[in-house]
Amino acid sequence: MTSTPNTPLLDQVNWPADLRRIDDRELPQLAREVRDEMIDAVSKTGGHLGAGLGVVELTIAIHKVFNTPDDRLIFDVGHQCYPHKILTGRRDRIRTLRQEDGLSGFTKRAESEYDPFGAAHSSTSISAGLGMAVAADLSATPRNVIAVIGDGALSAGMAYEALNNAGALDARLIVILNDNDMSIAPPTGAMSAYLARLASGRTYMGFREFGKKLTAYLGKNVDRAITRAVEHARGYVTGGTMFEEMGFYHIGPIDGHSFEHLLPVLRNVRDNAKGPVLIHVVTQKGKGYPPAEAAADKYHGVNKFDVITGTQAKAKPNAPAYTSVFAEALVQEAKLDEKIVGITAAMPSGTGLDKLQNLFPERTFDVGIAEQHAVTFAAGLAAEGYKPFCALYSTFLQRGYDQVVHDVAIQGLPVRFPIDRAGFVGADGPTHAGSFDTGFLASLPGFVVMAAADEAELKHMVRTAAAYNDGPISFRYPRGEGVGVDMPERGEILEIGKGRVMKQGTKVALLSFGTRLADCLLAAEDLDAAGLSTTVVDARFAKPLDHDLIRQLARHHEIVVTVEEGAIGGFGSQVMHFLANDGLLDSGLKIRSLVLPDLWMDQAKPETMYAKAGLDRAGIVKTVFDALGRGAKVGAAG
Amino acid sequence: MTSTPNTPLLDQVNWPADLRRIDDRELPQLAREVRDEMIDAVSKTGGHLGAGLGVVELTIAIHKVFNTPDDRLIFDVGHQCYPHKILTGRRDRIRTLRQEDGLSGFTKRAESEYDPFGAAHSSTSISAGLGMAVAADLSATPRNVIAVIGDGALSAGMAYEALNNAGALDARLIVILNDNDMSIAPPTGAMSAYLARLASGRTYMGFREFGKKLTAYLGKNVDRAITRAVEHARGYVTGGTMFEEMGFYHIGPIDGHSFEHLLPVLRNVRDNAKGPVLIHVVTQKGKGYPPAEAAADKYHGVNKFDVITGTQAKAKPNAPAYTSVFAEALVQEAKLDEKIVGITAAMPSGTGLDKLQNLFPERTFDVGIAEQHAVTFAAGLAAEGYKPFCALYSTFLQRGYDQVVHDVAIQGLPVRFPIDRAGFVGADGPTHAGSFDTGFLASLPGFVVMAAADEAELKHMVRTAAAYNDGPISFRYPRGEGVGVDMPERGEILEIGKGRVMKQGTKVALLSFGTRLADCLLAAEDLDAAGLSTTVVDARFAKPLDHDLIRQLARHHEIVVTVEEGAIGGFGSQVMHFLANDGLLDSGLKIRSLVLPDLWMDQAKPETMYAKAGLDRAGIVKTVFDALGRGAKVGAAG
Repeated sequence: MTSTPNTPLLDQVNWPADLRRIDDRELPQLAREVRDEMIDAVSKTGGHLGAGLGVVELTIAIHKVFNTPDDRLIFDVGHQCYPHKILTGRRDRIRTLRQEDGLSGFTKRAESEYDPFGAAHSSTSISAGLGMAVAADLSATPRNVIAVIGDGALSAGMAYEALNNAGALDARLIVILNDNDMSIAPPTGAMSAYLARLASGRTYMGFREFGKKLTAYLGKNVDRAITRAVEHARGYVTGGTMFEEMGFYHIGPIDGHSFEHLLPVLRNVRDNAKGPVLIHVVTQKGKGYPPAEAAADKYHGVNKFDVITGTQAKAKPNAPAYTSVFAEALVQEAKLDEKIVGITAAMPSGTGLDKLQNLFPERTFDVGIAEQHAVTFAAGLAAEGYKPFCALYSTFLQRGYDQVVHDVAIQGLPVRFPIDRAGFVGADGPTHAGSFDTGFLASLPGFVVMAAADEAELKHMVRTAAAYNDGPISFRYPRGEGVGVDMPERGEILEIGKGRVMKQGTKVALLSFGTRLADCLLAAEDLDAAGLSTTVVDARFAKPLDHDLIRQLARHHEIVVTVEEGAIGGFGSQVMHFLANDGLLDSGLKIRSLVLPDLWMDQAKPETMYAKAGLDRAGIVKTVFDALGRGAKVGAAG
Repeated sequence: MTSTPNTPLLDQVNWPADLRRIDDRELPQLAREVRDEMIDAVSKTGGHLGAGLGVVELTIAIHKVFNTPDDRLIFDVGHQCYPHKILTGRRDRIRTLRQEDGLSGFTKRAESEYDPFGAAHSSTSISAGLGMAVAADLSATPRNVIAVIGDGALSAGMAYEALNNAGALDARLIVILNDNDMSIAPPTGAMSAYLARLASGRTYMGFREFGKKLTAYLGKNVDRAITRAVEHARGYVTGGTMFEEMGFYHIGPIDGHSFEHLLPVLRNVRDNAKGPVLIHVVTQKGKGYPPAEAAADKYHGVNKFDVITGTQAKAKPNAPAYTSVFAEALVQEAKLDEKIVGITAAMPSGTGLDKLQNLFPERTFDVGIAEQHAVTFAAGLAAEGYKPFCALYSTFLQRGYDQVVHDVAIQGLPVRFPIDRAGFVGADGPTHAGSFDTGFLASLPGFVVMAAADEAELKHMVRTAAAYNDGPISFRYPRGEGVGVDMPERGEILEIGKGRVMKQGTKVALLSFGTRLADCLLAAEDLDAAGLSTTVVDARFAKPLDHDLIRQLARHHEIVVTVEEGAIGGFGSQVMHFLANDGLLDSGLKIRSLVLPDLWMDQAKPETMYAKAGLDRAGIVKTVFDALGRGAKVGAAG
């Protein structure tokens, strides 16, 4: 038990209206208290720490200067919104962050009118803000719209599309660039280097050279004076920054931890801005909490931790995490095949690709938050005979879907897609769940779509994908730990389109795609115990399907149940489509398809979510019993 | 019959190797002949004319200077590749462009080694080229990689992501910006304005003012001399162009119709470039063909035409085109509801949104080739109570998929998605087919997914979407003409999730989603004539399904056949999932699901494609006969 921080000023501030009554000079004190409160809360819940600590002053300053919620404040990604939640009537629930039935770890419309646009994926705020600014114009409602976006988020094309459009529309949109030179990993890309030059005042670095040329042209008469003059006057040169070229009025860089910088600039913009404005604010991720400031990742995402020492609680793993298994298997294959290359979109550690990067930096590419480019860049490498593993989370692969279709699948290029975070993700909630990949990939002609049932299977699939060179291939695996199976020395090359029978029965067939296999095996124990002899199959492939095996299941069982951790339209749909058109459903075979429920499930522990979804042992048994008219009584044998 | 153009020089040039033997001074003559040949060919086939005419000199110059195909030449979009095809061994088939079994209208890997990366969607070339350039580096293969990209394509975030990454990787990539100030429609966005400034030499427009400030600072002593000096020396200032900020060496603008400009620049780059280079080339779309030069759209896409007059052949329409019906219905609703706004991603005429734009320019937004932004911009408008119609082609909606999931669906925002070009598109081939939208939308919780069965239905759906404000809603409709049904004065508001029975039978149920309904009705005639009393239902909704109606069909028919113009995982999968889990398949109901075949179908006439896909009258009848064991003999009654 840690004691609650002492927060006399914050205790009087429940809403931005309270904040607006406080004198400017008291704001640094308020910032300290918000920081203490946030550190204490996250130490108990885990969550995103560094980002929120970096924007405490900025958040306070915005709510102080602008009339939220009537003025619209949009946080890009939203993981930096904890101070915002503390200051907008949600402090009493701040220790429920990311817990079941608690506050979301991101901004969320349903949670508060102070969250006018929810987020979680990166780089959406300028687009949403522009829509809102245009709406204000159309309805002649005088209103400020403020989008706070990190420098890392600017590597995404979507942010550029929005800047490009905002500059053309000349809408009254305030973009605050929160430049902490650090998204999750250190940022990459030319834009990031450019911002660093801007922030360090080396933007117009050509001017010294220009001064020299000018001197040479004019002769020695002006010499030093000219050179000094050129440097002095450089601020007057327009066309100097990319944001100005895009039609934005550009202010900054200013110190994002100084109210003396923030308040006058924000007030000035509020009172005088006409068209789009970009305020370049420099902040420090993890600011004000020494352990976070000192850490390489600035405590981006943390477990529960000790406030004094900063030591994070670590759950003892029972088995290696899927991400690690993937990463190590990929390194193993990459050592043996120099054509293997890895691509990540700003998630080297999240995807495990940092392990490849450590060993083969020249064969590992972090392209920034840029999934569209990542996929087609991989396709270019594949076209030249390389074997790219384009490692993305399921939910972020959605960003590159057209590129998967148009650049990879139509051309039949052998790009490998390791798909992490497939299925429920726990505390991150619905925005990060990997629900749709099986459906949107298996519908593509020529795609090979796999799911790993356990960590050994994942190792096989890495090798299978490395060996398969006839077209695109994907394999999905969930967040979290494996099930503790024995691990092979090296993965095997799986036969494409062949499942494996885990257990042979006679009456019930459970046909699993992915890690729900473990629950299928447990369910089979219950079913066997209830006198329903049960076959369990690990399909391995949603595409191509193992037609022979599925035919056997259909012909020799009373019921077939497909089980997957994905939305409707995926594996189960592929199986049913085959069974239907092959006539195998004509003679009264019972078929059931267990998929993710058709609703956006809020964050909770995965086990809770599986139970709610009916995708656990009990749910599978119940489905069979219901279908066979055995009533809903579920045996819990085993 | 027009006479074939006289092309003595071109007749000797079948391959780039031939071209490389020709003297530079003969290239203008070759350009004239390529242009004549291309105009003649497209006058017979129809297709993309303006874009190709604009790059004749550029195409010749590239093949002259670079060692294609070992050097990699990638055309962005690819619709400007006809001169390239003429010069790379495909002249003998150039009059089969876009015809069944003929040449593709785009670049295509399967067609020629001179097409190292196929295209059709915009803005992919820099990503693909960067992948290839990196591959060349990794394998220590000295090789040039050239990406030719239009200015319009630069509005897409994907291009920016690729520039950003290329600048950071410092790979040896040559990007040729083909700036014709005209993609399909006149371009939009700040980037476009910026390019116009570059091209007109007004880039450093701040310098004159800078000179004045400098003069003021230094006093009158230097005065004029300084001002002139500043202007003279401005070329030395680095940081001057956005491309340089992104890490590119930037050359241009140069005249893209002048070999005297093109050849030395390309040779210089070939021999000296180290890192990424951007060559800014200014061309004229439609160049060299007066009717194209004079036309507003520069003959972007044309029907067959008369070469002398430029008059295009027009097929007499039997019914209004779906696009027009949508556009007029939207205008009608927009007149009655000022909250309705329209959004297009650089396709005002293709989507018909130009009609709304003409009447309500302030309520119509062309955001550029920027589908990601388009969707979230629409979400921002919806969050403020507006009723955005975000009109995209099915295939381009793929570009905004994550935004549909994350910004629209998860938040339940009422964005309307009119989805044009759903299903086969004929001559544009597989890259433009709208195959996947039903699957990837119907899998999203809370989405309403409709398909119009005919043009009157489309009108109803426009009104239904306008009236529906409880969440996201989409309606798909195909390319081409309606079926000629009577049109209502105004659309009706359809009940959400309710289908309509077109014809009641007793044995066979055809359950159609979309415009295949007409063939279902014809098939029903044949089936009735064969003694199989047939029900035909227009489902209208893939989500929510009409459970009552589907239950009725299942209970009172021997067979249910779902019919849709979309890939597996869509409507049929939704129906089967419901039937299976509801137990309606348990007692031997026959179910069949007709979907698009699981392959990438090349361009052909839609009727041919429907027949191949088994989605026409005969295919539907055959499916029923096969399922009922009636043999494959298809009656052609009616």
